[in-house]
Amino acid sequence: MSIKRIESGRRMSQAVVHGNTVYLAGQVGEGATVTEQSKSALAEVDRLLAAAGTDKSKILQTIIYLSDMSTFAEMNAVWEAWVDPNNTPARATSQGALATPDYKVEFIVTAAL
Amino acid sequence: MSIKRIESGRRMSQAVVHGNTVYLAGQVGEGATVTEQSKSALAEVDRLLAAAGTDKSKILQTIIYLSDMSTFAEMNAVWEAWVDPNNTPARATSQGALATPDYKVEFIVTAAL
Amino acid sequence: MSIKRIESGRRMSQAVVHGNTVYLAGQVGEGATVTEQSKSALAEVDRLLAAAGTDKSKILQTIIYLSDMSTFAEMNAVWEAWVDPNNTPARATSQGALATPDYKVEFIVTAAL
Repeated sequence: MSIKRIESGRRMSQAVVHGNTVYLAGQVGEGATVTEQSKSALAEVDRLLAAAGTDKSKILQTIIYLSDMSTFAEMNAVWEAWVDPNNTPARATSQGALATPDYKVEFIVTAAL
Repeated sequence: MSIKRIESGRRMSQAVVHGNTVYLAGQVGEGATVTEQSKSALAEVDRLLAAAGTDKSKILQTIIYLSDMSTFAEMNAVWEAWVDPNNTPARATSQGALATPDYKVEFIVTAAL
Repeated sequence: MSIKRIESGRRMSQAVVHGNTVYLAGQVGEGATVTEQSKSALAEVDRLLAAAGTDKSKILQTIIYLSDMSTFAEMNAVWEAWVDPNNTPARATSQGALATPDYKVEFIVTAAL
């Protein structure tokens, strides 16, 4: 099976395609609030899925980290406005501090081609 | 490769089958203790794997979150009584608060068909 | 698709090969510092990938847990000296306490055969 790496840097690639499966790097977003960061991060997910040749209707699994679980409902509101309602992935969420204190939410997405 | 979604809701699906791989949503359980919640969550894993057409002998990877790592041994006792001893998956465990303070343990399972 | 389990114990296998995909158990390392533990854990990743018939040039995704995110730069220095610069994986990092307080870093690796 072929491996294709997208937006590869010294530390990581933003997406890796293996056969019919796409692994995205954890996506964080810009903005001050969880709402803003979730919208920004999920726009990056859209962009990277398109670069890989797929889209959000084919997401298989999403693991979400929140730096503060009290923002769970706020993140979910953005998520539910964004996700394809007819094609929701398996999902799990836990609390964990992220790479810098400014980051409040991260989405780790696995999708199909 | 086909994608089949099981028990799909507005936010997530409880299981997604892609080709020969099954991704389960993070499973939490009912009860007051880590022992009770682990048994309850792993019974849900059994149920969802059956719905996907497979079983625990074909689990590939499990990522576990504990809200308090001091319950690691308690969770492991339930895990080791449950997992197929001849077919143990790759596994990783870390501490992280879950969606509500009542939840003490979550299991994220990937399995083969 | 075949499933092959490597270094299987009662609790987990250190690696599971499913078709062309390899799932490693979360790898922790020995030593007092994040530098030492990262080097030790990534040497284990090398060893297990070899046992599965592959190597670090084929890593697809890596999820990293740090017990203290202030060690992010220290971990990254070891990571960037180790990872294949022409074949970097999708990556995500979050903070989470590990199985014992001595463990400061854990790497969860998925690779292609």
